[in-house]
Amino acid sequence: MINTLYLPELREMLAENRTEEMAEFCTAVHAGVTAEFMEGLTPSEAWRVLQHAEPFRRCEIFGFFSEDKQLQILEGEDRQEIAQLIEVMSPDDRVDILEEMDQGIVDELLSLLSHEERRNVIRLREYPDSSAGSVMTTDVAKLEEHLTVSQALAELGHQAEELETIYYLYVVDESDHLRGVVSAKQLVRSIVQPDKSLEELMEEDVVKVDAFDDQESVAQIVARYDLLAIPVVDRQNRMLGIITHDDVIDVVMEEAQEDVQRIGAVNPLEETYLKTPLLTLGWKRGMWLIILFFAALLTAFALEHYEARIDQHVWLVMFIPLVISAGGNSGGQSSTLIISSMARGEIQLTDWVKVVRREIAMGLMLGSLLGLLGWGAGLFLAPKPMYAAIIPITILCVVICGTLSGSLLPLFFRRLGLDPALMSNPFVAGIVDILGIIIYMSVAGVFYSLYPMAEAVAG
Amino acid sequence: MINTLYLPELREMLAENRTEEMAEFCTAVHAGVTAEFMEGLTPSEAWRVLQHAEPFRRCEIFGFFSEDKQLQILEGEDRQEIAQLIEVMSPDDRVDILEEMDQGIVDELLSLLSHEERRNVIRLREYPDSSAGSVMTTDVAKLEEHLTVSQALAELGHQAEELETIYYLYVVDESDHLRGVVSAKQLVRSIVQPDKSLEELMEEDVVKVDAFDDQESVAQIVARYDLLAIPVVDRQNRMLGIITHDDVIDVVMEEAQEDVQRIGAVNPLEETYLKTPLLTLGWKRGMWLIILFFAALLTAFALEHYEARIDQHVWLVMFIPLVISAGGNSGGQSSTLIISSMARGEIQLTDWVKVVRREIAMGLMLGSLLGLLGWGAGLFLAPKPMYAAIIPITILCVVICGTLSGSLLPLFFRRLGLDPALMSNPFVAGIVDILGIIIYMSVAGVFYSLYPMAEAVAG
Repeated sequence: MINTLYLPELREMLAENRTEEMAEFCTAVHAGVTAEFMEGLTPSEAWRVLQHAEPFRRCEIFGFFSEDKQLQILEGEDRQEIAQLIEVMSPDDRVDILEEMDQGIVDELLSLLSHEERRNVIRLREYPDSSAGSVMTTDVAKLEEHLTVSQALAELGHQAEELETIYYLYVVDESDHLRGVVSAKQLVRSIVQPDKSLEELMEEDVVKVDAFDDQESVAQIVARYDLLAIPVVDRQNRMLGIITHDDVIDVVMEEAQEDVQRIGAVNPLEETYLKTPLLTLGWKRGMWLIILFFAALLTAFALEHYEARIDQHVWLVMFIPLVISAGGNSGGQSSTLIISSMARGEIQLTDWVKVVRREIAMGLMLGSLLGLLGWGAGLFLAPKPMYAAIIPITILCVVICGTLSGSLLPLFFRRLGLDPALMSNPFVAGIVDILGIIIYMSVAGVFYSLYPMAEAVAG
Repeated sequence: MINTLYLPELREMLAENRTEEMAEFCTAVHAGVTAEFMEGLTPSEAWRVLQHAEPFRRCEIFGFFSEDKQLQILEGEDRQEIAQLIEVMSPDDRVDILEEMDQGIVDELLSLLSHEERRNVIRLREYPDSSAGSVMTTDVAKLEEHLTVSQALAELGHQAEELETIYYLYVVDESDHLRGVVSAKQLVRSIVQPDKSLEELMEEDVVKVDAFDDQESVAQIVARYDLLAIPVVDRQNRMLGIITHDDVIDVVMEEAQEDVQRIGAVNPLEETYLKTPLLTLGWKRGMWLIILFFAALLTAFALEHYEARIDQHVWLVMFIPLVISAGGNSGGQSSTLIISSMARGEIQLTDWVKVVRREIAMGLMLGSLLGLLGWGAGLFLAPKPMYAAIIPITILCVVICGTLSGSLLPLFFRRLGLDPALMSNPFVAGIVDILGIIIYMSVAGVFYSLYPMAEAVAG
């Protein structure tokens, strides 16, 4: 929804070039709110308004624009102005948005950056997708250990302007090796002892991550220790940058959505649903549907195998969808629970015995419950009450199959070093479908050989 | 996994009562790491070690213990000592853990708290589960607007000890109405102008939430504006507390897992999978399975209705699981995508036309693809090549049904004000199963009436 409240005023300010009012507009409220008020403007109108904000504020507001608007501005406006904006952007956001742009324009812009910033961009782009290095920012408050509290505060006053966050001060030696950390809170608390050195104040055992660590494990560490930011180091413990709380929230949201999509048998989308091109979406869904189709094709061959039995006892057909869906649904529940618990680190591979024991118990419990209901339905629809017992026995076996496959397959995938969420619910259901049909027909076969039709009639 | 590295040393320190070393152990590393080193100790051993930390540090380390260990300590150790711990705990964590405890012990402990803290606990417990009020902390840096930068810094130095976070300073008037916010960064940046007042420095338009707002929407706002903390106010704009970044990460993780579980047709668990009692787990899964069972029962009645047709053309049975799983899987993909996109705020109700258009396109695309494969399988298994065409036509129609139900039902649930994730994938699959059977049998009926067996043989 577009906030149109200020739109007419904004357009008027622009038309009459009321400089002061536009400058005031750019600073009056939270940058995110300012960006929302500008949603109705065209990219180039928005960019003209932003010219009245000072560079850092301009960059902050720009960061809250939609990606589309950002790209249109970056690609369409004056290269020199854009290069200035890019100089001010935080290194991680800058790299992210440059990735989306036309390579020709990126090269032009890079040539306009200072030597130092250009090197920074090129270096950050080298980190693999989803690595700690790819989400870190290199703007970080680094201070040398010999500084005193009052010197540190003064130094921080200088640096603060350019930094994304100043809530942890990282203490480094002269070759940038990470030595310790002091929180802004500790520093402020120590104002009464202005001559204490950072070395005395700092915590030496810093929770940190390697630049090549996976972003999901980084997010788990930050969540576990309730950190505001986490330092990223190279193999020699040299400080490369930090990952801040807002990026961690983004990572958590992104990874959660990817898991949901995998569980639902969709290859994770890189864009939002509405922005993903139809053909891309079709491919990310179609590839799984094709795999699932071939799994389902096996059910057709299984049924062909039992054609004679079905031909003789057509009533069995009525319960095919019910029997296989009971197994698929309980299996899907198991895989959902196991996959999401593994993603949160609540279940380890070593817990597999506990998991299997629980899932057998669940299968017995749920299978008996559904079996009972199935018996009722069987009594109603089967040609002879005696044959109705085929249904509950089948359901019990199929549900146990379901809970076991649903729990073991994701664990097995994790054991192989694969993403357990690849063992999506439809895939579990597909496997249980085939097993379900074999179990159903076998149980029916046993029943009809024990109690042939004639005898049942006699009984 | 338990970290046993320091366990023998710790036990030795305890046995020989080496006070200084224990005090040193409690402060040497990040509190979360300290807690990990103590994982192998019994709750009462851990509590004895903690006696050598100063109260705030003790509380910090305690906060990283597992919930089980926390409860055992709270319920088992000296009431007076525990009351002291509870006085120091952050108000939101305190309320959370008291909820889990035996009411008798809670009452005993409450009577040992200061009047003020007791009232605070009682007030916070009144907020509904999952509301902003239930996750906020009331320890917050509140400063009056007439203070200058240097006065504010000094005041903050006093307050910092007791506060969870000091990264935003909230400016209030004498009756606690929220007037504005100053970030610690701005304050530090203004050290060069020590006489500037907070009123001049503060941002007046504060992004805030109401105490009764839902925690999920709070998390979305914090993520959207990249905030470190968000103030919680009552209907009169009086400042009640703040929600900090670490609680937001917890909320995001919790809500994501709840969505995953709902999509997988499991009622969200309150505990982790392994800690949920079997009967509770059985109930949270069983209630959905029963509902899904009755949905599946309709397929049995639908098939009974077509018994004569099936009896005549038994080969049709082979494709029943394949046809309905094609519809269920594509429908499940649609509901997964729509539900998770709505949870992230990427799709609004007003987008429904766009969504439906996309899903019809998807249905056509995916249905044609699977239909083509189905045709191949049909040519192989159908009694006459002509009848093989029943399969692709059915699959195309069923897949479109699937994508439409999978997308429209969650939107419809949201429209009714219900949680769209209640429209779980198995539920969508259940609906598509029935439609699938009706479509399949109708298409087959049309084919056999247009081209009766005899004619097919003749052709």
